[in-house]
Amino acid sequence: MAHRDCVFCRIVDGDIQAEVLREDDDTLAFRDLDPKAPVHVLVIPKRHIASVNDVTESDRTVMGSLFLAARDVARREQLAERGYRVVMNTGADAGQSVDHAHLHVLGGRQMTWPPG
Amino acid sequence: MAHRDCVFCRIVDGDIQAEVLREDDDTLAFRDLDPKAPVHVLVIPKRHIASVNDVTESDRTVMGSLFLAARDVARREQLAERGYRVVMNTGADAGQSVDHAHLHVLGGRQMTWPPG
Repeated sequence: MAHRDCVFCRIVDGDIQAEVLREDDDTLAFRDLDPKAPVHVLVIPKRHIASVNDVTESDRTVMGSLFLAARDVARREQLAERGYRVVMNTGADAGQSVDHAHLHVLGGRQMTWPPG
Repeated sequence: MAHRDCVFCRIVDGDIQAEVLREDDDTLAFRDLDPKAPVHVLVIPKRHIASVNDVTESDRTVMGSLFLAARDVARREQLAERGYRVVMNTGADAGQSVDHAHLHVLGGRQMTWPPG
């Protein structure tokens, strides 16, 4: 169910604009407004799932779809060959900034290790 | 199919030892040998999937299972409340070190941004 006070649900609903790169029944991909790499895209489940902590059995295929969407985004953004990192933050220690699960897809530069 | 020359397939097969934390039909979770946080666990599909680039429709549920396994690992390692980051690297730009998809689960400290 969409949450009126969730910025990502509002993007899904079209109430807030975003630069959408890809959409399917279960996921939406759009550019991060504060990019940390030449390509920085967010892939979200359209369904409101607050975080990895809140994932249930019924979310299994939707969560798998995030990887398929990330794969497609990477191909379209010419990242597949050189590589890219996907990241999902949960809670305060990871700096989760929006309480709607989102997979960051970062590429177009060499990423360092550790990942933050 | 297991690959004889894949270190993670060999862990799945029991040919190489690892500190396994969790196992189900589709995934295996074990501690990273070079931890970058107080908790640093790898969650892998038992099936050999080289990277996100190689994920196909038939891998959708298995890839979703990685998130469910990460959620469980986080609970067991007392990370759920304070938070944790999950990361998957693909290709050279991301520093993918083993060509068998693996989800890093990192927590127990404040993670910084950007993620590498």
